[in-house]
Amino acid sequence: MIFAGSSGKGFAQRVCDYIGVPLGKSQVIKFSEGNTMVRILEPIRNKEVFFFQPIGMNPNDEFVEILFFMDAFKRASAQSVTAIIPYFSYAKGDKKDEPRVSIRARVCAECLELAGADRVVTMDLHSAQVQGFFKKPVDHLYAMPILTEYVRSLAIDNAVIVSPDSGYAKQARKFASHLGLPVAIGDKTRYGHDEKAEVLDVVGEVKDKNCVIVDDFTISGGTLVSLAVELKRRGAERIIACLSHNIISEEGVKKLEASPIDTIISTDTVENPHIAGHKKFKTITVAPLFAEAVMRTHDRESLSPLFEQASERILKSVFEYDKE
Amino acid sequence: MIFAGSSGKGFAQRVCDYIGVPLGKSQVIKFSEGNTMVRILEPIRNKEVFFFQPIGMNPNDEFVEILFFMDAFKRASAQSVTAIIPYFSYAKGDKKDEPRVSIRARVCAECLELAGADRVVTMDLHSAQVQGFFKKPVDHLYAMPILTEYVRSLAIDNAVIVSPDSGYAKQARKFASHLGLPVAIGDKTRYGHDEKAEVLDVVGEVKDKNCVIVDDFTISGGTLVSLAVELKRRGAERIIACLSHNIISEEGVKKLEASPIDTIISTDTVENPHIAGHKKFKTITVAPLFAEAVMRTHDRESLSPLFEQASERILKSVFEYDKE
Amino acid sequence: MIFAGSSGKGFAQRVCDYIGVPLGKSQVIKFSEGNTMVRILEPIRNKEVFFFQPIGMNPNDEFVEILFFMDAFKRASAQSVTAIIPYFSYAKGDKKDEPRVSIRARVCAECLELAGADRVVTMDLHSAQVQGFFKKPVDHLYAMPILTEYVRSLAIDNAVIVSPDSGYAKQARKFASHLGLPVAIGDKTRYGHDEKAEVLDVVGEVKDKNCVIVDDFTISGGTLVSLAVELKRRGAERIIACLSHNIISEEGVKKLEASPIDTIISTDTVENPHIAGHKKFKTITVAPLFAEAVMRTHDRESLSPLFEQASERILKSVFEYDKE
Amino acid sequence: MIFAGSSGKGFAQRVCDYIGVPLGKSQVIKFSEGNTMVRILEPIRNKEVFFFQPIGMNPNDEFVEILFFMDAFKRASAQSVTAIIPYFSYAKGDKKDEPRVSIRARVCAECLELAGADRVVTMDLHSAQVQGFFKKPVDHLYAMPILTEYVRSLAIDNAVIVSPDSGYAKQARKFASHLGLPVAIGDKTRYGHDEKAEVLDVVGEVKDKNCVIVDDFTISGGTLVSLAVELKRRGAERIIACLSHNIISEEGVKKLEASPIDTIISTDTVENPHIAGHKKFKTITVAPLFAEAVMRTHDRESLSPLFEQASERILKSVFEYDKE
Amino acid sequence: MIFAGSSGKGFAQRVCDYIGVPLGKSQVIKFSEGNTMVRILEPIRNKEVFFFQPIGMNPNDEFVEILFFMDAFKRASAQSVTAIIPYFSYAKGDKKDEPRVSIRARVCAECLELAGADRVVTMDLHSAQVQGFFKKPVDHLYAMPILTEYVRSLAIDNAVIVSPDSGYAKQARKFASHLGLPVAIGDKTRYGHDEKAEVLDVVGEVKDKNCVIVDDFTISGGTLVSLAVELKRRGAERIIACLSHNIISEEGVKKLEASPIDTIISTDTVENPHIAGHKKFKTITVAPLFAEAVMRTHDRESLSPLFEQASERILKSVFEYDKE
Amino acid sequence: MIFAGSSGKGFAQRVCDYIGVPLGKSQVIKFSEGNTMVRILEPIRNKEVFFFQPIGMNPNDEFVEILFFMDAFKRASAQSVTAIIPYFSYAKGDKKDEPRVSIRARVCAECLELAGADRVVTMDLHSAQVQGFFKKPVDHLYAMPILTEYVRSLAIDNAVIVSPDSGYAKQARKFASHLGLPVAIGDKTRYGHDEKAEVLDVVGEVKDKNCVIVDDFTISGGTLVSLAVELKRRGAERIIACLSHNIISEEGVKKLEASPIDTIISTDTVENPHIAGHKKFKTITVAPLFAEAVMRTHDRESLSPLFEQASERILKSVFEYDKE
Repeated sequence: MIFAGSSGKGFAQRVCDYIGVPLGKSQVIKFSEGNTMVRILEPIRNKEVFFFQPIGMNPNDEFVEILFFMDAFKRASAQSVTAIIPYFSYAKGDKKDEPRVSIRARVCAECLELAGADRVVTMDLHSAQVQGFFKKPVDHLYAMPILTEYVRSLAIDNAVIVSPDSGYAKQARKFASHLGLPVAIGDKTRYGHDEKAEVLDVVGEVKDKNCVIVDDFTISGGTLVSLAVELKRRGAERIIACLSHNIISEEGVKKLEASPIDTIISTDTVENPHIAGHKKFKTITVAPLFAEAVMRTHDRESLSPLFEQASERILKSVFEYDKE
Repeated sequence: MIFAGSSGKGFAQRVCDYIGVPLGKSQVIKFSEGNTMVRILEPIRNKEVFFFQPIGMNPNDEFVEILFFMDAFKRASAQSVTAIIPYFSYAKGDKKDEPRVSIRARVCAECLELAGADRVVTMDLHSAQVQGFFKKPVDHLYAMPILTEYVRSLAIDNAVIVSPDSGYAKQARKFASHLGLPVAIGDKTRYGHDEKAEVLDVVGEVKDKNCVIVDDFTISGGTLVSLAVELKRRGAERIIACLSHNIISEEGVKKLEASPIDTIISTDTVENPHIAGHKKFKTITVAPLFAEAVMRTHDRESLSPLFEQASERILKSVFEYDKE
Repeated sequence: MIFAGSSGKGFAQRVCDYIGVPLGKSQVIKFSEGNTMVRILEPIRNKEVFFFQPIGMNPNDEFVEILFFMDAFKRASAQSVTAIIPYFSYAKGDKKDEPRVSIRARVCAECLELAGADRVVTMDLHSAQVQGFFKKPVDHLYAMPILTEYVRSLAIDNAVIVSPDSGYAKQARKFASHLGLPVAIGDKTRYGHDEKAEVLDVVGEVKDKNCVIVDDFTISGGTLVSLAVELKRRGAERIIACLSHNIISEEGVKKLEASPIDTIISTDTVENPHIAGHKKFKTITVAPLFAEAVMRTHDRESLSPLFEQASERILKSVFEYDKE
Repeated sequence: MIFAGSSGKGFAQRVCDYIGVPLGKSQVIKFSEGNTMVRILEPIRNKEVFFFQPIGMNPNDEFVEILFFMDAFKRASAQSVTAIIPYFSYAKGDKKDEPRVSIRARVCAECLELAGADRVVTMDLHSAQVQGFFKKPVDHLYAMPILTEYVRSLAIDNAVIVSPDSGYAKQARKFASHLGLPVAIGDKTRYGHDEKAEVLDVVGEVKDKNCVIVDDFTISGGTLVSLAVELKRRGAERIIACLSHNIISEEGVKKLEASPIDTIISTDTVENPHIAGHKKFKTITVAPLFAEAVMRTHDRESLSPLFEQASERILKSVFEYDKE
Repeated sequence: MIFAGSSGKGFAQRVCDYIGVPLGKSQVIKFSEGNTMVRILEPIRNKEVFFFQPIGMNPNDEFVEILFFMDAFKRASAQSVTAIIPYFSYAKGDKKDEPRVSIRARVCAECLELAGADRVVTMDLHSAQVQGFFKKPVDHLYAMPILTEYVRSLAIDNAVIVSPDSGYAKQARKFASHLGLPVAIGDKTRYGHDEKAEVLDVVGEVKDKNCVIVDDFTISGGTLVSLAVELKRRGAERIIACLSHNIISEEGVKKLEASPIDTIISTDTVENPHIAGHKKFKTITVAPLFAEAVMRTHDRESLSPLFEQASERILKSVFEYDKE
Repeated sequence: MIFAGSSGKGFAQRVCDYIGVPLGKSQVIKFSEGNTMVRILEPIRNKEVFFFQPIGMNPNDEFVEILFFMDAFKRASAQSVTAIIPYFSYAKGDKKDEPRVSIRARVCAECLELAGADRVVTMDLHSAQVQGFFKKPVDHLYAMPILTEYVRSLAIDNAVIVSPDSGYAKQARKFASHLGLPVAIGDKTRYGHDEKAEVLDVVGEVKDKNCVIVDDFTISGGTLVSLAVELKRRGAERIIACLSHNIISEEGVKKLEASPIDTIISTDTVENPHIAGHKKFKTITVAPLFAEAVMRTHDRESLSPLFEQASERILKSVFEYDKE
């Protein structure tokens, strides 16, 4: 049975449409004083439950909602509960890079398991290591097989894949390898002993090239825009951005609209109201990929074929959704 | 060392003033996409930490903030961490009174302990049993010794303590016993086999009496106002409400202002912006009580003397704050 | 497969009779030095086990027995184990109402889960919150649908439901609502500043009425008898007591026999040897309700239809048992 | 601070006398329906608590009492709690020697730790492996250094140490080594293919010798008496039994009184009312050993010197107690 | 599905042959710096996995390998994982027999469960109590039914079963009972007060008898050889040793070859390269016993029939393997 | 008190020398059959223990040794135990980068905590996220402040920092920033659709420059040598490698000796016997850094000053050690 939290209903419905099952009935109440309450409106005793909810635009509300749903499913004697979190924003908090901070991804992972999640499905975690913060099995899906096919369908000549910083260089390499393209890496850095000011450096060839900047997400668009300006300064032609998750803020939308970037491609893991009506933003659905993961889990089949390449059936559904 | 989350700073400062120590420096960042991040700005290695934050007006944000603070304190090697949650709104979710819901208070209690809380201090939980949802020691303080002294100071003649429903009857009895007053109990009920409509019944004598309605909190004010109207209908004189926690909504404030209730007394466990400038609302501080609890914990003294009666020193501080 | 501990054999047999399956063979040895040992005499590898045992008349022995049975079932590789505890006497220890005591219900709940209980079924817990002391699913059944039908079958005119104290007022309201009757609430209280002595107060109308006192249990009968005397003093007609669990002591039986109470109705969750031969005591079976719960759990059906109303089939069985 | 449960008061008092501190005040209530409740009557916030209670003559009551005390100490914010269980009768249930039984010692060990025990002190466990059923540190004391000194003080000529079965052979060897004596081993066995009847075999020389049978405990005395008869049949002289724990039943006392055994020596870990007035039974105190363990734990000194040999100070106290 | 670690492949293959299923594909990589990595090469989503690996000749590598396999199985969503450890060498570390050492068997048991083992199957643990170090079900098989049948097939006249020390006396008794033979017990001991030197004592009759020494394992062969020499000195005829597990060292092989022991019989739980080509060493397979355990577990049948006696089918397979 | 496992003795001794305390006495026994046993030879009851052992050259033995030491410390009632693992080789296994493998770093982290580690100190983990695999506090030290000062002391003109792959690009950037130098990034990649062969690409300027390749470790030296050859082909001058941990294999040493790399600098976290007598290898001690961490932990001071910059006192000790 498939259920969804308040922010996952649209995505879960697309998954249900692909599979051909109805979405389970449930209710989320946000009381006037702010307390959240959840209610499952169909019996699930001994059923295999798949629950969809991203932790994205209102992460704290969405996270607490998942905790309460997990507990409610468990106390209602579900056989197993899979928490499907297409975007897990707290994955960013994956290390203690300064003294006296929290490793937030670990805190959230543990609470989700404690509340009752038997398995987690997610996509393009900020770092692959976050999978290890969970003790329970995590199926970590990748947008890359779908995004690269989409980029390939755009038939861009003379392209180069650009990483916005050295931390994402490895992912950019993989993306480029999929498409047989070269890579360039931007990063803020300091040269020389005396200079204090950071400058944006780009290693790799970009002159007269069409640049595809890849990243997992952007919020304010700041890094992307600076990089695009620098790429232009160095003689780049067209600039496209390709992001896994769309959690850009309202200001970010404005900044990108005003920037030299032609198009910003991202997936539908998060429902972002800010991009509505903005032509530069292009949303590609990954719901078929999650639907296949649910079906294969239900049928006890391996998920590994989903990791490297998107099947014909998935791509057909992706491109059909694109035409709508 | 005493720290506070974003909603507990005012209360913690009052506690620090009473004790005569500075409030520890920390920082809460709410990123534009909604993620919360916390940072402790002073070394706490091997220190005994007391952290103040109610879970009240923005319960999900406040709850997640506490989780991250607990983890940050623990990873920064605090010796022990006491989570002081003057109001714990999710205590309301203390039972499974309909099928397929979550016992939210248990979920929250477990997550707090998992994240690192070694002990919890709170006040007037929705039910005393919530203490048992925690495995770690909970010091459960009561507003009653302070509120009854305050009500006594009002010197109300011919008074009766009124419980707004039968669930709160036991607490109302205790309140009445403290003051040597009789009790009346309101409740919605149905009479007769055929009638479907609920009517508001009041058992006990209220005619020509000054009524002090007691409850742990109200949000919309609905129950209080209906009860007050019914009490008036039955010939009651002055009506006062006395609540442990103030989480009334904006509409609730309007409704109470327009009601036959003269005054609404409550404590400062939650900082409620909606009551600012509204004369009927009266806030009594319980910070001295929490300050004594912190001092006694630090000095390894028993907290039990705080439960039954408020000391001279506490009352003096309470009434001084009242005069400001 | 259904098994029973030494105190649950009679009840489990009634459940088995209703379902039409044999009771599983097991053995409890109490050695002469007091040690308990349990033995399961049928293979249960990968079976779904339901184990019946109240924690009632010899609570410590019964509790330890359950722990050992749980462990034995688990180590013998049962697929799942449901501990069915029709009466859970330690639920009374559900809060820390004085300093330095134990929350005994939480201790017992945790030990039961630790020992291997995957699910718990119980009835009329002292407080509904005790369900939250368990992490595993608890199916909390209510005697009310059966008891109210039984009371209805007595066709008492001009009745009022009486709660023996304000703590049970909410339950009494529910009982009264089921039958469309008014409610009255007794309680010990103190009036006035100087008086120290507690008096028994009754709020609500009882004069010339037939009173049905409801409570979850009584041990010594003290409160019930005092209340009955007071009700008589206030002009009440017939007095009946209706209790969920029958753990009355030998002296209690004598006290009630000598009291103005006509009949004491209770369920068969506990096998109480003290009432044998005493005419005032009336036992109503709730085994059909537990049998339905077992069948529905086994068939993966929702239990919620059992909570509000007793089915025809259950009531038929209840009244047949009553005739025997 | 030293506290004791209802069965450990005498022993704990002897420990307190040795150390020179008062026994902490606490209360155990056994309600008429059988429920146990415990209450600590002195503040213990942040104190180091030592709690004495054997699990012996009423093991289930004693065990549950310890659980509730542990929880009460923890919830009352004790700094650490050491459960001192001079005799732990459930240690006998240390293996699964037949299908579908419980490993009762593990169940009890886990419950004790769950309830709050930070450390356990015990003596002469049925098998040393039981220590490994605990995750928390266990200080396992031995009666042997005291018992062997006592036996030595009896100056028995031409003695042989006899193990009542092959399972205790290793312990008997150790006992014999301490005293520089030979060993003999009894056991029930079957000879030849056809014979079904078990016979009692004794390997080792006992003719014309004074036999000291050693064992950890006896309940019915059956094995001891059969062995004594067989030893006599094989020409043994005087027979003495030396047991770690005294949990013999009333019938056992009679059987031993009527047997060829001269004296039964055991320690005071359990208060056994059945032996009162029976001359053959001799009780040696081990309280000084436990007192030293408490003092050394409190002073952060190693306990290992206590394992091999009893100090002068301990022996002096043991022999003084013997004279009283 | 059946898988094996690097040291369990031969044994697992024999089990697979008996059952008639193929061995699952997996890979163990030992990198040049020493790190171990494991890989499962077939999908196992929701499969029931049985994994074979003794902890024997390279215990640390073998133990770590199991941990990684357990985690890999769990993260790959196996339905359940049974760790079959035919020999568990760390079972020897089952008690704290000197101060400040580790109870290694408990550490290993907990880590195995933590890593994901849902059940453990093993044979002839050093002590039966080790089963209680596991929280999960352990099926503890015995080599005795096979070894005694093998010894019986040798038709040795006038035999006596000899335990090499008093700690193994109980097992030796059982072995002897199976065959209807008498028992003798060797042990190192000290006589008299002044003598420091240990002497090897044998209690029981061995003169002119054929001795079958039984033990769970030997490493250096030292104890066995000394005992054999002593038995010869006391007039014993032929001497045979019968061991559960074969982990003898290279020097041990040499020592035994040079000793008065005729034959050393042991099982194939461990693949020991040192005995290759040595005629005195005889290996009896217990794979059929484990194969039956796997089949019965898979078919939800009780394992208890395997404990007391080996079935015809098992013995047939054992003797056939012996002939090869 | 400071103790060390069998592979950490040299390093721990250097730490003890810096602090001026003796190294605690302990013993590791590796039995001939491979079992490890550990023994602590000094009382540690209630002491704060720091235990040094890298998991490096014999990772499985070293890991198991730590588990047993942790358990031994805990069972011997240490107040707290800090596991100091200067190199943690299993940190490499930090993600599930292919189907059906284990996240080995999480398995090891959990086992270490389970066995008793209260805190962990380590250096230059393969990824910073591994810190989040631990629930207990981890102090993650960096070699960079020492290595950059050492490189600075070499006064290399016209230098460029080179990352051997895009995964290490971020760390290389940080290293370069410390020294105010530019960065270049090597990586294996594929160009164009048809080509299958990987080529080694270098983005960034290296011609006529002195290259400092940085990495956390190398085993076979393969990547380093290929990169060095490619750098030379592109016109690089001198080539130096600077590694955090030295776990190079014997063949790796030969390969590097024969390569165009002038010098290989690394720290002493692991004692590597293969480099003895090889002039190209240079070992810099980081023991003073760990010594400061121990002292600050003991004195309840913050460790954060150690992360960014090495103090005068540390550097003095580092350079003195370099001269020896």
